[in-house]
Amino acid sequence: MNKNDLVKQIKNKQSFLCVGLDTDLSKIPNHLHAYDDPVFEFNKQIIDATKDYCVAYKPNIAFYECMGSKGWESLQKTLNYIPKNIFTIADAKRGDIGNTSAMYARTFFENMNFDSVTVTPYMGSDSVLPFLKYKNKWVILLVLTSNEGSKDFQYNVDKQENKLYENIIYKSSNWGSTNNLMYVVGATQLSEMRKIRQIAPKNFLLIPGVGAQGGDLVSVSRITMNSECGILINCSRSIIYSSDGLDFAEKANSEAKKIQKKMSSLLLEKIL
Amino acid sequence: MNKNDLVKQIKNKQSFLCVGLDTDLSKIPNHLHAYDDPVFEFNKQIIDATKDYCVAYKPNIAFYECMGSKGWESLQKTLNYIPKNIFTIADAKRGDIGNTSAMYARTFFENMNFDSVTVTPYMGSDSVLPFLKYKNKWVILLVLTSNEGSKDFQYNVDKQENKLYENIIYKSSNWGSTNNLMYVVGATQLSEMRKIRQIAPKNFLLIPGVGAQGGDLVSVSRITMNSECGILINCSRSIIYSSDGLDFAEKANSEAKKIQKKMSSLLLEKIL
Repeated sequence: MNKNDLVKQIKNKQSFLCVGLDTDLSKIPNHLHAYDDPVFEFNKQIIDATKDYCVAYKPNIAFYECMGSKGWESLQKTLNYIPKNIFTIADAKRGDIGNTSAMYARTFFENMNFDSVTVTPYMGSDSVLPFLKYKNKWVILLVLTSNEGSKDFQYNVDKQENKLYENIIYKSSNWGSTNNLMYVVGATQLSEMRKIRQIAPKNFLLIPGVGAQGGDLVSVSRITMNSECGILINCSRSIIYSSDGLDFAEKANSEAKKIQKKMSSLLLEKIL
Repeated sequence: MNKNDLVKQIKNKQSFLCVGLDTDLSKIPNHLHAYDDPVFEFNKQIIDATKDYCVAYKPNIAFYECMGSKGWESLQKTLNYIPKNIFTIADAKRGDIGNTSAMYARTFFENMNFDSVTVTPYMGSDSVLPFLKYKNKWVILLVLTSNEGSKDFQYNVDKQENKLYENIIYKSSNWGSTNNLMYVVGATQLSEMRKIRQIAPKNFLLIPGVGAQGGDLVSVSRITMNSECGILINCSRSIIYSSDGLDFAEKANSEAKKIQKKMSSLLLEKIL
């Protein structure tokens, strides 16, 4: 999917919600275990319940990989079930030397046809470039994450007073363009988010950490939104696990709808 | 496998060779395509040909993942075929927030029973700790890689004159011990390797980049070896693809034997 189509979807649906499919067998409602493929059944019902209120789905690959072949099948079925006009993110955090990254790119872009994949920047340009060779496919590069450990290295300041995560934005802006490179920016530090938007005014940002992890939707959006919207806000647990009973899909629907309503107001502020 | 057993294997075999199983369908000999599972057949013959000369095998997960379920099956069969006294490394370069890293750890340590997994440090402590909870399992943390892109961020110098990769060693030494934490150090810069050995005198180092990528076995070993050997040197392409004909296993055998002979002399210098 290219940027125009993504922005069009955001305007049509008045939403920049990404639903994270962190589907965990031990957390899904009990009655789903009667199905042949409980993970897919859960995802299917979550997709049906939320597809009108979100513009992206982000399966967390670890959750599928840890179920072996069966997990990869559930993932492929889920991907096939997602409506074509919804942006798909393989949250895989891959990255290796060139020939190996090329293999990972083939997995997620050719074999599975995801629109994008999350990539870790530590190994530098040649670990990221193989993913950027695909037309209308995106790299979503880790910049500033929302976990406690983000403080260990991401804020390291160099002699030019640049933080590591800032250097990653500066350098990577030469590897791709605003048409194929997004950044992961956790919704934890508003001051940092403001800074990142200054450095990368046009790139889409994928923002986790709103909801269950404590980030505030309104403040985060006001700081990071640009004239094309320019953000995807991810919610996983707060939507998909809002109930563990028979009504899980209904509750996920209400939760997604509630968030979309807030997003609609926020978009109106920018007259999108 | 614990450190004592690894060191014992190194002494018994007079080798610190790790054979990288970067098995690529497009590079294996033509005649193997007649088999049901050409990737496993290739690995099986490579293992038979090299197992007396190496102490570790390192399948590169990307190469299996990109073949879908069939690839994961080939990987599992390969892992089952590796003799139990040989150390196994899932070269997966995973790492994510805590609950997700826990899933990756489960995949490689519980479902597949690898001895170790390569982990990327960018997301910090809580992305690494879930892998360190397993008894007799190892994290092999990326520190200094051998690719061109390693220069983009890994050498970034902070105000205390520490490079990023040095900071990763300093911090991570509190997360694990020399009994469950190794470091990936590419065989490219001898001066850096010397420095790393000073900072981490006792940790095992996994060293790629010798052979096809140009690093010199003798200089690298002399600089990094400690009293327990303390290094695993990985060779992939230079061994497994030393011939693409019917004699590929025979050629891999000669190549591994040749390297083991050099390693034996190097170990003798340290009287191991």
